[in-house]
Amino acid sequence: MMQDQPAAAITEVRVTPVAFADPPLLNAVGVHEPWALRSIVELVTDSGEYGLGESYGDAVHVQRLRKVGAELVGLDAFDIARLRIAATETLAHDTLTGGHGTSGMVTGTTDLDRVFAPLEVAALDVQGKLLNVPVTTLLGGRHRESIPFSGYLFYKWAGHPGDGRTPDTAEADGFGTALDPEGIVAQAEWMVERYGFTALKLKGGVFDPHQEASAIEALAARFPGIPLRLDPNAAWTVETSIEIGRRLGGTLEYLEDPTAGFAGMAEVRGQVPMPLATNMCVVAFDHLPPAVAAGSIDIVLSDHHFWGGLRRSQELAGIADTFGLGLSMHSNSHLGVSLAAMLHFAAAARNIDYACDTHWPWKQSDDDVVEGSPFTFAGGSIAVPSAPGLGVTLDRDRLARLNRAYEDCGLTARDDTTYMRRFQPAFSPSIPRF
Amino acid sequence: MMQDQPAAAITEVRVTPVAFADPPLLNAVGVHEPWALRSIVELVTDSGEYGLGESYGDAVHVQRLRKVGAELVGLDAFDIARLRIAATETLAHDTLTGGHGTSGMVTGTTDLDRVFAPLEVAALDVQGKLLNVPVTTLLGGRHRESIPFSGYLFYKWAGHPGDGRTPDTAEADGFGTALDPEGIVAQAEWMVERYGFTALKLKGGVFDPHQEASAIEALAARFPGIPLRLDPNAAWTVETSIEIGRRLGGTLEYLEDPTAGFAGMAEVRGQVPMPLATNMCVVAFDHLPPAVAAGSIDIVLSDHHFWGGLRRSQELAGIADTFGLGLSMHSNSHLGVSLAAMLHFAAAARNIDYACDTHWPWKQSDDDVVEGSPFTFAGGSIAVPSAPGLGVTLDRDRLARLNRAYEDCGLTARDDTTYMRRFQPAFSPSIPRF
Repeated sequence: MMQDQPAAAITEVRVTPVAFADPPLLNAVGVHEPWALRSIVELVTDSGEYGLGESYGDAVHVQRLRKVGAELVGLDAFDIARLRIAATETLAHDTLTGGHGTSGMVTGTTDLDRVFAPLEVAALDVQGKLLNVPVTTLLGGRHRESIPFSGYLFYKWAGHPGDGRTPDTAEADGFGTALDPEGIVAQAEWMVERYGFTALKLKGGVFDPHQEASAIEALAARFPGIPLRLDPNAAWTVETSIEIGRRLGGTLEYLEDPTAGFAGMAEVRGQVPMPLATNMCVVAFDHLPPAVAAGSIDIVLSDHHFWGGLRRSQELAGIADTFGLGLSMHSNSHLGVSLAAMLHFAAAARNIDYACDTHWPWKQSDDDVVEGSPFTFAGGSIAVPSAPGLGVTLDRDRLARLNRAYEDCGLTARDDTTYMRRFQPAFSPSIPRF
Repeated sequence: MMQDQPAAAITEVRVTPVAFADPPLLNAVGVHEPWALRSIVELVTDSGEYGLGESYGDAVHVQRLRKVGAELVGLDAFDIARLRIAATETLAHDTLTGGHGTSGMVTGTTDLDRVFAPLEVAALDVQGKLLNVPVTTLLGGRHRESIPFSGYLFYKWAGHPGDGRTPDTAEADGFGTALDPEGIVAQAEWMVERYGFTALKLKGGVFDPHQEASAIEALAARFPGIPLRLDPNAAWTVETSIEIGRRLGGTLEYLEDPTAGFAGMAEVRGQVPMPLATNMCVVAFDHLPPAVAAGSIDIVLSDHHFWGGLRRSQELAGIADTFGLGLSMHSNSHLGVSLAAMLHFAAAARNIDYACDTHWPWKQSDDDVVEGSPFTFAGGSIAVPSAPGLGVTLDRDRLARLNRAYEDCGLTARDDTTYMRRFQPAFSPSIPRF
């Protein structure tokens, strides 16, 4: 029965930036660049097992990950508390700037929680592998065996304007143009047919709010009863938010970040019938007390990538539960390591109350760093892995290919705005816009 | 490297009520009875390992533990989420009343969190034993290797008035009468000499508040610079709380529950210089939002016995950290299984900001259910066990002896007030008293 005490001294932390083809998805600050950037963390231990984490791919973020990772060498992968202390100490002397890794809409995250997250996930992965239990067990067990996701709809161009270097995703992404309600409904049909989603989310903040409201109404007519969400990424004024919120009363499951800030959200919240969700005005633990005090939100979108990892996300879940907030999940473009971590967290969270977001359908299926095709949608849900750790294995050929794509693509930070300005020089990401 | 997937189907949940000698410690609702009641939970699995938990010993609470325990048979001890769901479902049909297990000062705890706590601790213990890791590893690692405790001072009688059935603890507890500041200082000297405590707490609410303030001042004079706390268990009016709070400004590390309720505590808090702590107005997650909104408290006293176990206590710790509350730890009279669990939680909590409470010095050293004497104070601190699980082993002879004491003592619920009235028939536990 009794085995040797598991040992897992960290011998190396490898951080590999990777890039994969991303379609031209439109949002309030511009358009997705042709390449989505990520970083893959390998936490190598003297046990013969390694752990995996995944995070943003901005060069500054990668630098921070490597700097903190180097300080973890020699520490025990079984002692996440000690690892976090080391990360805290290292980042206390950090002089780098920037590196939030997101598009400019989620910039208030803390360096510590954002940098530590993939390292913590990797530590949990190696712990699970060595103990032969899935990460969910380390998080306290499973409230559900499969995780429902929402179909994430975007206004989009057919493909990236060709320049000889960018991938043409017009065919590859399986769906072409979507610039009006009809296009969004057609995109939803394509997604629901392929993945079986039972909830739909539209990324808004792109066109006139009434056009976007019409798209939601068209979705409601085409998919009666399906939960719908609209996320204009704070592109609206308080007045517009109230106007559109009232128009869509009874139609939206929730309205996500219609406007910016605690006060603006609170004002809107008092005058629209549906719950308000956020992954913009509350993206760090420090934001919770003022948001709760102001009554700004009903639902907080978790995201272990900036909420400090899986255990810190459990703290967020506990806060949401205690303070009467709903809990859902935000997503950026991501690969299979992140998806595995998202599944384990969502399974262990008592109070994930809504289908989670994922950009997964917008990724080419062989663009990944994990072996095989471990994830399959059934009825819009994915089964939680039950193999030890995260339940995914690194495919080094794929990792090398996506790393070459990173080196070749020339991008070092996500910047949807500058890319958009190549095609629309007058584009401004200033909010509120409508 | 890879072992078989650990399996731990629960085959039986044994709940054994036990009693051990308790000195006549005075408090706002009466005096400790001659016997402290506890329950010992054994979570037996088909793996050959069992897990231990400890909780209150009230007969109604024991009934609930057995009822919920029976519903856990057949479930996996590695899936705490599933165990909690089963407990939730069982207690949804609970028709028992009472059973909070405490003295009448901590009655607002929830049945689910209170009943599930020892079962969760026992599940973590068996997980740790099977995985060969201490419970701290399952909780995310260690922020500290030893846990500082405060010396818990009580006004007390020399011994229980003899009635032929109650144990005479006058000599056994090593300390006699303490009914005035001099007695409290002498008791503190005895405690500090034996255990090395570097913080002291006085249980108040017993005598005139100015006498108790004098006792604190006498302690400050005798032990300059030592952190001091006073806990009148809400026996004071708002006015008295402010008067005494101001008198003890600069002397107390914190004042604990001077008065009752969110509003009263908030009023006192605004007018005294020291932080206010509580284990009375905030003893369940539902109490946190109104306490935060009212600004009632600075410090919340954790106690895994009523906060739902160790993982739920981690949620509490996360809430405290996020909402700017300090975190300390409350104690009732307890045995070694509880102490082990308290140590593991305190080691894994990022933000235990104060020496924790324990009644340990008031217990006879061989009154326990664990083997040997695994806990030693050094400088007021106890080392966190590093053996698998909780790191304690059940001593069945001791368990049988303490179970016989439970059966023989005739007590079925803690009731300090009725016991006090045997000697002071006019005693009233009504608050505020001063």
